[in-house]
Amino acid sequence: MNYRMIFRSLGTVMCIEAACMVPSLLVSVIYRQGDAMSFLLSIMILAVLGLGLRRIKAITSDIYARDGFAIVALAWLLVSAFGALPFLLSGAIPSVTDAIFESASAFSTTGASILREVEVLPRGIIFWRSFAHWMGGMGVLILMIAILPSVKANTLHIMKAESPGPAPEKFVPKIGQTAKILYTIYIALTAVEVIFLLAGGMPLYDSLIHAFGTASTGGFSSKNASVGAYGSVYMETVITIFMLIFGVNFSVYYTALKGNLKSIMRDEELLFYLGTVITAIILIVLNTYGKVYQSIGEAVRYASFQVGSVITTTGYATADFTLWPVFSQCLLVLLMLMGASAGSTAGGMKCLRIILLVKIIKREIVKIIHPRSVQTVKINGRAVDEEVLSGVMAFFFVYFAVFAASAIVLSLDNKDMVSTTTAVIACLSNIGPGLGTVGPAGNFADFSNLGKAVLSLCMIVGRLEIYPILLLFAPAFWKRVNI
Amino acid sequence: MNYRMIFRSLGTVMCIEAACMVPSLLVSVIYRQGDAMSFLLSIMILAVLGLGLRRIKAITSDIYARDGFAIVALAWLLVSAFGALPFLLSGAIPSVTDAIFESASAFSTTGASILREVEVLPRGIIFWRSFAHWMGGMGVLILMIAILPSVKANTLHIMKAESPGPAPEKFVPKIGQTAKILYTIYIALTAVEVIFLLAGGMPLYDSLIHAFGTASTGGFSSKNASVGAYGSVYMETVITIFMLIFGVNFSVYYTALKGNLKSIMRDEELLFYLGTVITAIILIVLNTYGKVYQSIGEAVRYASFQVGSVITTTGYATADFTLWPVFSQCLLVLLMLMGASAGSTAGGMKCLRIILLVKIIKREIVKIIHPRSVQTVKINGRAVDEEVLSGVMAFFFVYFAVFAASAIVLSLDNKDMVSTTTAVIACLSNIGPGLGTVGPAGNFADFSNLGKAVLSLCMIVGRLEIYPILLLFAPAFWKRVNI
Repeated sequence: MNYRMIFRSLGTVMCIEAACMVPSLLVSVIYRQGDAMSFLLSIMILAVLGLGLRRIKAITSDIYARDGFAIVALAWLLVSAFGALPFLLSGAIPSVTDAIFESASAFSTTGASILREVEVLPRGIIFWRSFAHWMGGMGVLILMIAILPSVKANTLHIMKAESPGPAPEKFVPKIGQTAKILYTIYIALTAVEVIFLLAGGMPLYDSLIHAFGTASTGGFSSKNASVGAYGSVYMETVITIFMLIFGVNFSVYYTALKGNLKSIMRDEELLFYLGTVITAIILIVLNTYGKVYQSIGEAVRYASFQVGSVITTTGYATADFTLWPVFSQCLLVLLMLMGASAGSTAGGMKCLRIILLVKIIKREIVKIIHPRSVQTVKINGRAVDEEVLSGVMAFFFVYFAVFAASAIVLSLDNKDMVSTTTAVIACLSNIGPGLGTVGPAGNFADFSNLGKAVLSLCMIVGRLEIYPILLLFAPAFWKRVNI
Repeated sequence: MNYRMIFRSLGTVMCIEAACMVPSLLVSVIYRQGDAMSFLLSIMILAVLGLGLRRIKAITSDIYARDGFAIVALAWLLVSAFGALPFLLSGAIPSVTDAIFESASAFSTTGASILREVEVLPRGIIFWRSFAHWMGGMGVLILMIAILPSVKANTLHIMKAESPGPAPEKFVPKIGQTAKILYTIYIALTAVEVIFLLAGGMPLYDSLIHAFGTASTGGFSSKNASVGAYGSVYMETVITIFMLIFGVNFSVYYTALKGNLKSIMRDEELLFYLGTVITAIILIVLNTYGKVYQSIGEAVRYASFQVGSVITTTGYATADFTLWPVFSQCLLVLLMLMGASAGSTAGGMKCLRIILLVKIIKREIVKIIHPRSVQTVKINGRAVDEEVLSGVMAFFFVYFAVFAASAIVLSLDNKDMVSTTTAVIACLSNIGPGLGTVGPAGNFADFSNLGKAVLSLCMIVGRLEIYPILLLFAPAFWKRVNI
């Protein structure tokens, strides 16, 4: 382990976080609600610590996959912890556990909240939550291309733009270039959404907040009633469409920019993703029409928004789906677990993994029927490495194992079982609301400090697709042995 | 496919089922409660159809894995369907769906019931339910050695007594010999349990019923209040111990008979199984003491029985665990999913699979840290084939997929989410009771016909470890092509 480089990198990350607080500082200065000081102080603390760490001289600048993992895992933990400073210092969220929960929820693009009321808080603080979402979404994009490909087994060549190429063992210039393309797409799409929201008459501040929440698939709103507060079909339509857009693998946009529209039309994950969205909307409309909604139009409106919000793991709400029939709720829980496309800002297991798992099962069946046949699993016409398949299957189990372990600890709070289990799913899949008391109309305030700590960790674990944080707990990870 | 041999074999199975009804006929003759006629009629129907099918002449008697799967899957479906005859003909269960549910529950050793009252029914009918359990348990033993080993990928050398040997592609004499050993152990242990129950003063009829339910890990009782009806610490202790005994891999007993006690003491699955039981009991005692139970003794008594009942997927009850704190309930749900040892009569995923999955994850972590290292996964010191590992991981996903699909269909009944999901788990893992309205004090009577049909199928799907039934739905399974 190159500890010196790890510390230096963490220092850089802290300086970046300090810089990220500047826009929120400006907002707080504009609105003059007494929270500017908390940002100034937070920026100073982060800058001093960050610059201090950056003074550490590395003996060698070589960093390998292992160091990369350590940096990623520690950086997300650190950023979440220090991101809580403005909440604490401004007094907006007086409890440390609560402030860290809110910050982890922001950066991990989860959108789960311990706040019962958001409209009473200073606008700078609310802006910070949402801006952290947006930064978190960007962080996910770096991750996908810079860190995760080195663990072939659990990334399934997430960025087709990069693959098939050798898995990068160090940060090489080519990754930087890909990152720039991704950022450009991310920023451009966010800007377009802001314009659409402004065009519909949403104030600039609200537009920014909701565009940040959509782009990162985070879901924090500046309204207590989330997007439902606007009661506007136009706003809901714009946000539904953009949520779905941000749930698409970004490599699809890259391919589109290169003009290769044909291959997009045949992209298996895109088709599966859109097919799932449409199927889920139809089923929920059929299930809620006549029971919850009195017109088909109303049913379509609310079903589309909620399906888009849940599958992309955004978590905005215009309806309280805990009041829907159980069939619709079960469907939503499955969408929560699945999430949207790999290579997007969405959380969850990702469509690509589900497609591969289904194909693996099909192959198992063929193997039973024709024991001597050898079959490869293909995606978009290309064979997928056996090691990648094995990693996908292992991921499914490890995801479930983390879910089970977290649910067991959370159940000590003795909330009802649906709230307990869906709270964990909502955090692990970076959605935000679950069912029961943590539904769209509820919040996470009533959990104990232990419960909130577990859920905060779940959010970061889920965001990093589990392994980076899991590694921190593996004794072998810290040993000096090199094979 | 050798259709003629398949039909012939199904004919044999029906004749065996007819023979299995004879003891119940005798019981009904002894107690004279008017159900004897229904058994006589059922036996005649089965015998006529069975003997008729056996008249089909096979061109060749060769049967391959594929035919074996078809026989197993169709046999269990057929046996469950015809097992419903006595319930229907006697008028004990007037609805066809209900009767088939009860029969599938009996043969699959699930123990879930649509009956609100069992004590009002004729004793012959109740005996038939429990005898079907016992036959089902025996059927599982055949399955493990005769059919499943040919699908290497999803059996993980369940019977160490047989492995490492070539996977049998046809029914060979050696399998018959192993089957005899297993039957002898099964029958002997059942007899010992009957003796212990008689010694405690339980009537012979009740002793047989409860020994059948324990041995098969089924769980049907002759009492409305299950084993709790006796209110006897002695009976509960005997049944707890025997439930745990029948949850052990039968190859352990075979090894013990051969005098190799050392290897038993080091058997990883046995240690994991016992360790899980003890840990679960301790945690539930700590969680319920002072809240539900006022003395440690009482807490230990009820926790031990319920843990033993749930992990072995038996489903007997002496306490209504739906009234326990959520932590204890969550633990029980995990035990339900896991089940006891491979190579026992228990349902669920099996401890061995969980051990292998955990080892796979450990290996994934080591792979990330040392990308170039090559590691094998070992169990009891022996390396496990990669294909077996891949099969275990695929099994975990397919189990979840079947669970999810069934839960979605069942949710159309609009019961609460906990009852819906745990009903599916209780049936798929062959336990019997779940939580909510299907808890130990509840039953499955309130589900719709569609719901009951889905749950009946789940029981058989779970009992056969999914693939045999899944194959029936695969078009490729029925094609004449041979590779």
